[in-house]
Amino acid sequence: MSFPKVGVIGAGQLARMMVPAAVDLGIELSLLANSSTDSAAQIAPYVVLDLSNEAAVLTWAKKCDVVTFEHEQVPAKTIEAIEKAGVKVFPRASSFIFSQNKLLMRQKISELKLPNPQWSSYDGGISPITFPLIAKTPTGGYDGRGVFVITTQSELEKLHSKVNQTLLLEEKLNFDYEIAVMVARSPHGQAATWAPTLTVQSDGICTQTITPIPDITEELAVEVGNIALAIAQGIDLVGVMAVELFVVGGKLIINELALRPHNSGHWSIEGSVTSQFEQHLRAVLDLPLGDTSLVSKWAVMGNVIGIDTNKSKDLYPPYLHLMARSPKLKIHQYMKELRPGRKVAHVTMIGDDLVQLRSEVAHAVDYMTGAIDE
Amino acid sequence: MSFPKVGVIGAGQLARMMVPAAVDLGIELSLLANSSTDSAAQIAPYVVLDLSNEAAVLTWAKKCDVVTFEHEQVPAKTIEAIEKAGVKVFPRASSFIFSQNKLLMRQKISELKLPNPQWSSYDGGISPITFPLIAKTPTGGYDGRGVFVITTQSELEKLHSKVNQTLLLEEKLNFDYEIAVMVARSPHGQAATWAPTLTVQSDGICTQTITPIPDITEELAVEVGNIALAIAQGIDLVGVMAVELFVVGGKLIINELALRPHNSGHWSIEGSVTSQFEQHLRAVLDLPLGDTSLVSKWAVMGNVIGIDTNKSKDLYPPYLHLMARSPKLKIHQYMKELRPGRKVAHVTMIGDDLVQLRSEVAHAVDYMTGAIDE
Repeated sequence: MSFPKVGVIGAGQLARMMVPAAVDLGIELSLLANSSTDSAAQIAPYVVLDLSNEAAVLTWAKKCDVVTFEHEQVPAKTIEAIEKAGVKVFPRASSFIFSQNKLLMRQKISELKLPNPQWSSYDGGISPITFPLIAKTPTGGYDGRGVFVITTQSELEKLHSKVNQTLLLEEKLNFDYEIAVMVARSPHGQAATWAPTLTVQSDGICTQTITPIPDITEELAVEVGNIALAIAQGIDLVGVMAVELFVVGGKLIINELALRPHNSGHWSIEGSVTSQFEQHLRAVLDLPLGDTSLVSKWAVMGNVIGIDTNKSKDLYPPYLHLMARSPKLKIHQYMKELRPGRKVAHVTMIGDDLVQLRSEVAHAVDYMTGAIDE
Repeated sequence: MSFPKVGVIGAGQLARMMVPAAVDLGIELSLLANSSTDSAAQIAPYVVLDLSNEAAVLTWAKKCDVVTFEHEQVPAKTIEAIEKAGVKVFPRASSFIFSQNKLLMRQKISELKLPNPQWSSYDGGISPITFPLIAKTPTGGYDGRGVFVITTQSELEKLHSKVNQTLLLEEKLNFDYEIAVMVARSPHGQAATWAPTLTVQSDGICTQTITPIPDITEELAVEVGNIALAIAQGIDLVGVMAVELFVVGGKLIINELALRPHNSGHWSIEGSVTSQFEQHLRAVLDLPLGDTSLVSKWAVMGNVIGIDTNKSKDLYPPYLHLMARSPKLKIHQYMKELRPGRKVAHVTMIGDDLVQLRSEVAHAVDYMTGAIDE
C-alpha cells in the first residue's frame, strides 16, 4: 500500500492528538521524541533523538514521506538540513521562521500591510515606543514566557543587558479581548479557516476558548479570516497555523503566530467536521483539505492546568464524578505529570446553551485540578 | 497514575477503532492478536497468542484491569477461565454466550417475552417450521455465513447431515426493512441506547446505514430502544451490544445480537456525542456512560467492501479525488488487504440533507473499491 509515513518532530500532546486522525486515515506516524515518557511516545512509534545530532535526524527523516513539527524549538539549520537532504518538510524553514522569531514576524506582517501594533527592534538607546511597553525576546518564548511589561527606560536597559540580545518592543495595548483563528494551507495553495475563537486568558495563559466568538460582528469575523488567509499565503504556509489577535475598540491587531496545531484549535476535534489535527496531516500530505464548519452552535474548551494546591496527582478518579455530572463532556488526557502551570489535559463540550457549556467546562477543569471538591 | 489497562481479545478493525477513544481518555490497551499484521496490532500494543493456550491467555489477562472482546470467536471456556482467575471480563461469559449461540439467544428472547420469529431447534425429523424457512448453525456464523434458505424437507435433512450439529430453524419473514440499535450497559446497571439505525443490505451484507431511521414513527423508535434495554438487562450485559431487528408490517422481530461494538454503530464516531467505542470502554471500566444524542440531523455510513473487479489494491490514491469532491467525508481505514467481500474501510458523513449524504457516501464507496472511475 502507498499509505504515507509522516515524521513529527516532537512528541507532546499536540503529536498525541494527531494519532487518532492518523489512525482513521491509515497514515503512519514516526515521532522524534525527547523521552520515551513523552505524551505521544506512550501511544505511537517514536525514536529518541537529540535534535543537535544532525546525522541521526537526517537518517530518521529520510525514512519519512514528509516531516512536520509539533513545537517551535527546532533549530532552523536542522529544518534546512532536512530540506537539503531532499525530504519534504512542512511548514518550510522559510515559513516556520515566522513562528520562531517574533521580530521577523513583525517585519513580515508590516510587509504584508496587515495590522501590527507599534513595534521596533531594540539594541539599546532611547526606546522609540512610549512607556509602558511590552518587550519580548524574539525567540523561545511562549505562554507568557519571554514577555515583559516595561514601564521605564532604565527598566528596559536593565532587561536588555540581562537577556543580552536584540529585543522586540511593542506598544502596550488596552485590548478589549483576545481572539485566535486557525488556518490551514496545502502545498498547492488550497487554504481554509475555521470560525474565530475567543481565548479567555488568566495571567497570560488561556484557560478557556469559546467558538465562535460571542457577539462578534460578521464583518469582524470575515476580517479575521481574511487576515489569516493573507498571512498563510504571504509566508507560503503548509500545515495549520494559529493567528492570535487583539481586539482593540473594534479593530484587530495581530499578536502572535504559531505554525502548528494550537491550543486555540482544540475545540475543532469535537466542534468541527475536520479537526485541526486531521487538517494538518492532510495539508502536509498535499491532500485536499476537509470541511471546517462547526457541527454545533457552540464549542467550549477548557485547559486543565496544574495548580499549587493539587491534592492528588491522579487524574483518573475524577472521571467518575465528571462523567456522571456532565455526560456530554469530552476529556482529552495528555498523560503528563501534574505540575503547577502545566497543561495536562483539556475538556470540550459542544451544544446550544453557551452559559451551560461554559459552566460545565469550568467545573470540570476545577474539579480535575482539585480546585474544588464537588 | 491509576489509569487502567484494558485487554481486548481480538485486534481487527473494531479494536482499531477503540484506539482513538482510549488515547483521548488515557486508557492503556493491550490487544490479544492473531498476527502482528492485524488491523489494530499495527497501531497499538499487542501480544500474539493462540486462544487455545489457556495458560498464556491467563498470564496476559492478569496484567489487565479488565478484559473485553472485539469478536465472538472466543471459546466460552477461555472466558470462564479468565473469570475464575479473578480477572474482570466484560461482557461476562454468561452474557456473551447469547452473542455466540443463536439457539440460546432465541430461548432467552422467548423467556424475556420479546418478539422472536417462529423458531425451533432441529436435530432431525419433520420440520416444525413451514417451508421456506431459514436454517442457521447456532455458532460461528456472521455476515450471512452459516445462514441457509431451505425450501424442502429433503434439503433440510441434507443440510443437517452435512453440518452434523443441531440447527436453529426460523420462519422466513417477508420483512419490510432491517434495522439495528446499539445499547450500552455498565456493571452497576446504567444503560443507554442510541437512535435506531436503518441497515441497507445487499446479499446479506450491510452496505450503508442511515441514522436515525427515516420515516420511523416515534412509537416504533421507542419500542426499539425498550427492546434493546430489556435484552441488556435480561442478559446482564456489560459493554455495548447491537440488536438487529426486522420490521414486518410495522411490527418488530429480533434477528440477532452482537455483544461488542458493531458495524451498525460506526456512525456514532462522528454522529453522536459519545461513540460506541468510547462507550464500550466506559462501560467495561464501570465509568458513567456518555451522552448518546446525535450531533446532526442525519449520519450516513458506507462500508467499503472489496469486489472482484478491484483495479488496484491501494486505497490511498482515491483520497485525492474523494477528499476534493466531498470535504465533509470522514474516512476510516482498517489497513486490511483488499479481498472480495471483505470490509476494508468505512466512510461516514453527517449533515441535514439525507439525499446528498447517501449519494456522496455511495459514491465514495464505489470509487474506493474501483466500481466506478470518477
